Amino acid sequence: MERVDTDAILDEVNTALSSGDWNRAVKLIEALRPPDQAEIFHDLPAPDQDELLPRLDLEDSADILEELEEDEAADIASRLDPGELASILDEMEPDEAADLLGDMNPSQAVEVLAAMEEPEEVRPLLIHADTSAGGLMTSAKITLHAELSAEKALEHLRVLAQSSDDVYYLFVVDADMHLVGVVSLRQLVIAPPSTPIRDIMDRDVISVEASADQEQAARLMSRYDLIALPVVDAENHLLGIITHDDLVEVLEEEATEDIYRLGGVPGEQAADAPLPLALRSRLPWLVLNLGTALISAVVLSLFEDTIARVAVLAAFFPMVAGVSGSAGTQTLTVTVRRLALGELLARESLQTLGREVLIGLCNGVTVGFIVSIIALLWKGTPTLGLVAGVAILLNMIAAAVAGVLVPVGMQSLKFDPALASPILVTTLTDTVGYFIYLGLATLAIVRLV
Amino acid sequence: MERVDTDAILDEVNTALSSGDWNRAVKLIEALRPPDQAEIFHDLPAPDQDELLPRLDLEDSADILEELEEDEAADIASRLDPGELASILDEMEPDEAADLLGDMNPSQAVEVLAAMEEPEEVRPLLIHADTSAGGLMTSAKITLHAELSAEKALEHLRVLAQSSDDVYYLFVVDADMHLVGVVSLRQLVIAPPSTPIRDIMDRDVISVEASADQEQAARLMSRYDLIALPVVDAENHLLGIITHDDLVEVLEEEATEDIYRLGGVPGEQAADAPLPLALRSRLPWLVLNLGTALISAVVLSLFEDTIARVAVLAAFFPMVAGVSGSAGTQTLTVTVRRLALGELLARESLQTLGREVLIGLCNGVTVGFIVSIIALLWKGTPTLGLVAGVAILLNMIAAAVAGVLVPVGMQSLKFDPALASPILVTTLTDTVGYFIYLGLATLAIVRLV
Repeated sequence: MERVDTDAILDEVNTALSSGDWNRAVKLIEALRPPDQAEIFHDLPAPDQDELLPRLDLEDSADILEELEEDEAADIASRLDPGELASILDEMEPDEAADLLGDMNPSQAVEVLAAMEEPEEVRPLLIHADTSAGGLMTSAKITLHAELSAEKALEHLRVLAQSSDDVYYLFVVDADMHLVGVVSLRQLVIAPPSTPIRDIMDRDVISVEASADQEQAARLMSRYDLIALPVVDAENHLLGIITHDDLVEVLEEEATEDIYRLGGVPGEQAADAPLPLALRSRLPWLVLNLGTALISAVVLSLFEDTIARVAVLAAFFPMVAGVSGSAGTQTLTVTVRRLALGELLARESLQTLGREVLIGLCNGVTVGFIVSIIALLWKGTPTLGLVAGVAILLNMIAAAVAGVLVPVGMQSLKFDPALASPILVTTLTDTVGYFIYLGLATLAIVRLV
Repeated sequence: MERVDTDAILDEVNTALSSGDWNRAVKLIEALRPPDQAEIFHDLPAPDQDELLPRLDLEDSADILEELEEDEAADIASRLDPGELASILDEMEPDEAADLLGDMNPSQAVEVLAAMEEPEEVRPLLIHADTSAGGLMTSAKITLHAELSAEKALEHLRVLAQSSDDVYYLFVVDADMHLVGVVSLRQLVIAPPSTPIRDIMDRDVISVEASADQEQAARLMSRYDLIALPVVDAENHLLGIITHDDLVEVLEEEATEDIYRLGGVPGEQAADAPLPLALRSRLPWLVLNLGTALISAVVLSLFEDTIARVAVLAAFFPMVAGVSGSAGTQTLTVTVRRLALGELLARESLQTLGREVLIGLCNGVTVGFIVSIIALLWKGTPTLGLVAGVAILLNMIAAAVAGVLVPVGMQSLKFDPALASPILVTTLTDTVGYFIYLGLATLAIVRLV
């Protein structure tokens, strides 16, 4: 089946709402899957959202709050009656409920938590930082002891797993809740019924500490193809598990963060963040850009006399600075992505540098040659062609060096290479480009005027 | 546990190999998990790889070939004896085996396929395009019929699921292999033993057609939190399933593709692709950039007289063109990413445009004002400040418009918005910037000389 046509259903829901037919609106939404419910719900006006949510099944309300963007969910939740919200939270996955409470104002969150039926599943999750492994985990509802037989374990599971959660792996603990192994549901099912868990479990279980960064948890899960990752404290006590849907979310979040940072949009940027927030995430970057443009401006100012005498030089600025800037961005992009994916290890930096300089040299020779020909044919000045061509060749090599060394250096200084590297690399290609080009032109000025 | 220190183990393996101690090298590698085995293996010289692989367990060899980059795996595979390779392929996941065979030269692949014990699992997977849903799927080894009881289904599973594959969902088919439902292993385990599958299965099963793009399959899986997605033909016959590890791989691949395209590296770019291939993926983009720089060059040439008379104008080129280019890149980046994540729907384009123009206006006023002040303080020319400030303001608005309309337009024309948009947007901000700035300067020339 294909994705639902949410445009059409949104229209139907809006028609129902405008004629006050709440029942029809409820039916239309309840017939959908959670992500589609949330997409429709997101597009309704706030008053309609507030009227509609309490009329939905508790489970549907819980699904919608889980699927909405965090800020929006917190907004809607804080407008609900605390008792009502508590009942919805009881239906949510504990980690999602904890995230929602964490996004609300603290006094309201405390009130809601007190009204919940099962606050003890959510409370321990509230203490972990949002972007840590602990912040991603949900409570491990079912744990097994190593002495249990496969048959007893399955019985245990039948009693506990009546809710809608999917269970694929079961983690095995000792009497003190130390994590000692993992067994898959498949292994339990196919094992002879009397086999003790300790004989079928895998003792080599990959886990992550609660304080680790969420990206580290995601890298472990994706590297080792895990659909559940247990989270432990420093003494290896099992605290919870991270599930595959969190993995997918973190991977997309981290990719978005890298894409935004490389594109000059540092900081979070929700699609419909209020305008002041959007400005705050973009303006500082532009002002920083302005600062680096000022460095280029100073270089250009140094050569004002040369430019005044040979104004035709200006026509080649976009080629000398721009194309080398693009080459630097190419190298930087490849390097940053390989660092992020863990594909570029420290031991390979030198080899990468050599490789990129060689690529820069080849590209520089080609592009420099084309520009020389353009200058010769267009302006009829061989010296101009030579000056521009050589400037591009040298700048391309500088771009390749900067494109590797800047992000690798950032990474080894524990900064995110995606964050500051783009501006450093283009500043470098701009200033070096202008300096070499105008410097050479000044040296050859008698042949240019 | 943490990631293994592969640096240290690589050293140990190299020491063992240099003293001819194959047994020790084999032991060191076999003690690792597959991704770590592959990382070490990748760093060994080819002759050592060729000697070592046949000495490893078939299962370890299969794991390594599965985990290596596709090109490298195909290289190594094609150097193996066909009979030996066939035995390794029999141990691999059918989809991975099919991918590997697809990357080898056809005559060799046919020979190896003929030598396999179970070619029938792999053969049907070979016909699908590499980047289609069909190309991702693996064979669905276990299917259930709706009339079976839960107990019989579990027995069936015990007989079939002795291999190492993890099974989480079981897909239910009718007598003609039409996909009719899905049941999780958990549901089977907790259902009363005599319940027929038809009473516990979920009939609302999400599937994808084999010809669909892999990105569409990945979007379905991530949107609906699926860890297995059934692949069907046009008549809803079950052909295979896509598993969660493929989802993660596709998401990373698609993110990398977008990052590379936005960074001006279109086309695939393996980390250690041979140099000519790397050049082929980068040089055309630079030449294209050169072409667009030529447009800016023509604009600059038009105003050669103005530049010759007021050379100080050149100092502000990097601010007028560069900072607006950065603003355009910001808008473009946010728009492209939201399109890729399916967060920006057609019905929201106009609203997005208005929002971005407003952001452009605010940023333009701020940055334009700062530049005016810089011009006034540095060069002591109020007119220059006014000209540069107004040019930046107008160019920022142009950048915002281009940053939304170009990618949205590309998408609606069925092009990838990440591919050509960056160059279009910066070309636009460059030429519009120079034109407005130098045009205004020419109009105000008497107050500037």
